[in-house]
Amino acid sequence: MNYPIIPSIDVSSSTQARERQGTLTKPAGSLGLLEDLSIQLAGMTGKARPRFHRKGVIVMAADHGIVKEGVSAYPSEVTAQMVLNFLNNGAAVNVLARQAGAFVKVVDIGVDYDFHGVEGLLHRKIANGSMNMLKGPAMTRTQAEAALQVGIELVQSEINQGLDLVAIGEMGIGNTTASSAITAVLTGLPVEQVTGRGTGIDDAALQKKIQVIQQAIRFNAPDPQDALDVLAKVGGLEIAGLAGVIIGAAARRVPVVVDGFISGTAALVAAKLVPEVKPYLVASHRSVEIGHQAIWNSLGLHPLLDLGLRLGEGTGAVLAFHIIEAATRLLDEMATFDEAGVSNKE
Amino acid sequence: MNYPIIPSIDVSSSTQARERQGTLTKPAGSLGLLEDLSIQLAGMTGKARPRFHRKGVIVMAADHGIVKEGVSAYPSEVTAQMVLNFLNNGAAVNVLARQAGAFVKVVDIGVDYDFHGVEGLLHRKIANGSMNMLKGPAMTRTQAEAALQVGIELVQSEINQGLDLVAIGEMGIGNTTASSAITAVLTGLPVEQVTGRGTGIDDAALQKKIQVIQQAIRFNAPDPQDALDVLAKVGGLEIAGLAGVIIGAAARRVPVVVDGFISGTAALVAAKLVPEVKPYLVASHRSVEIGHQAIWNSLGLHPLLDLGLRLGEGTGAVLAFHIIEAATRLLDEMATFDEAGVSNKE
Repeated sequence: MNYPIIPSIDVSSSTQARERQGTLTKPAGSLGLLEDLSIQLAGMTGKARPRFHRKGVIVMAADHGIVKEGVSAYPSEVTAQMVLNFLNNGAAVNVLARQAGAFVKVVDIGVDYDFHGVEGLLHRKIANGSMNMLKGPAMTRTQAEAALQVGIELVQSEINQGLDLVAIGEMGIGNTTASSAITAVLTGLPVEQVTGRGTGIDDAALQKKIQVIQQAIRFNAPDPQDALDVLAKVGGLEIAGLAGVIIGAAARRVPVVVDGFISGTAALVAAKLVPEVKPYLVASHRSVEIGHQAIWNSLGLHPLLDLGLRLGEGTGAVLAFHIIEAATRLLDEMATFDEAGVSNKE
Repeated sequence: MNYPIIPSIDVSSSTQARERQGTLTKPAGSLGLLEDLSIQLAGMTGKARPRFHRKGVIVMAADHGIVKEGVSAYPSEVTAQMVLNFLNNGAAVNVLARQAGAFVKVVDIGVDYDFHGVEGLLHRKIANGSMNMLKGPAMTRTQAEAALQVGIELVQSEINQGLDLVAIGEMGIGNTTASSAITAVLTGLPVEQVTGRGTGIDDAALQKKIQVIQQAIRFNAPDPQDALDVLAKVGGLEIAGLAGVIIGAAARRVPVVVDGFISGTAALVAAKLVPEVKPYLVASHRSVEIGHQAIWNSLGLHPLLDLGLRLGEGTGAVLAFHIIEAATRLLDEMATFDEAGVSNKE
């Protein structure tokens, strides 16, 4: 598979942003991560004073064959039910997107339900869910590549229509299981250190989930040096699609705001497939899923928020839009010491 | 001094909010602190599904006689210059308030500058700054009470005009010195554990600042059991005014979003003067000023944001408006499992 070329960060813009931060009416550095973020966004966008005019969240949905093994607190049909809830604007991500002035695009990339004729949904189904990875690979390599391609094309089509800041989110009962499997293989950490309770399983189910993941990894033997192999064998269609969104957006200098554990896994995969995407990632929050921090550590990212979220859908990423907008507005709108006639440090 | 009576939290509203959270289309608890916050806000406001329609930040400005001792990186005249910057909408808090749809009210409660005829400023000057607390008390008890009264009356006047969510912020060169002194006395912690670099002093100046604070406390011997005595002897006019804002708002069931170290000190003072205000406080963020976390610990509060801020002005509190609005919107707008036809946990 050929991936689009990712441009490098524009150092001239980030340097101009850093210099401007030093002239604004505040002690240098006193806006902390907001200053760093504004400088990073300048480098990503190639604009010394970046502003975002069309924000959106892309929510990819898919089912997981592994749910048959009892790894989730909710039944598989909830994936399709929640897709309809998204389309009716009733889910958490809809509420937060309305607040943030962002659109929500919902993508059926692999839900085990016939959405034929359902309006407002982006129909990009590759299969009726992934296969049970205890019995074989979750996807074929061809399916994984097709899902990546869906993500790349979809986000670039949105960018062509003006999208300039994208958040990624997902819905898929069973997808923390696939995410833990991928994260364990790609980070080299033991499964139990990257596996949490997902939507809320009890101790016994958590032990079962860990064993299922360990067994699936042993059985499929994904090659840690080949992220596409890992993605196909123990991943999921929505994770592959979101990895594609990241690659497609980075290729166009559009910052990607990464949500929770599953979206983080997609970022980990994307960064292994195409390492040049890394500087375009914004870590929105730290989830209570224990594997999430392992991903941020592996990517060298510091999350903006830490609110004990564990919902996914893109909720944390859309919430972080406010922080990102604050960073860009401060850089762009604050008065300088000269403009305001304020004395600088003695 | 007689303080207004603070009503207790409305348990019926917070119970209704908690019950509704359990019916919304998400795993129970998966919105973490946002769920807790929505329940707390219901209790504060007495509304089962609270929404805020008029948000504002009250920024109190004052000078500090202790600046003569070389405790700050900036000269005293910056206080007045920044007040004018606020009025011209050029400061960080203005930018963030515009983003959040909040108004900014700037109050001269004790700036050492003649603002006669300056429009847009709330003229409530009690003195041209506090006195040098190395030579005597920073304020008389009467001045401290007058400043508290200014805050109470001012916020209640705004509430009469519709204000339903208030953030507190400040400007006052030298005010981290007063805040560290108050925090040390009221928490009982050693001065060096609650004293930081303020606007950015170096190691030598930090040692000097710690010594000045220790000397001021020894010299004035404020009574830790009498918060008004502490406030008057080693405090500042803006800190007193903000403590008044907290008391005045809590009396009217209006949640108070507390900003950085100086605003936190005002919250600590208010909670000592009138302990019933505590449930009306929202901790917006954790500053890099080391005394700030000591205050949150003392008040039993967990800050919403941790972005390495150390600017004050109300910046962190106004940024937290987005998180607070998210919490209330989610509670109010999300679909329930029944409404959306989504299967709940098995």
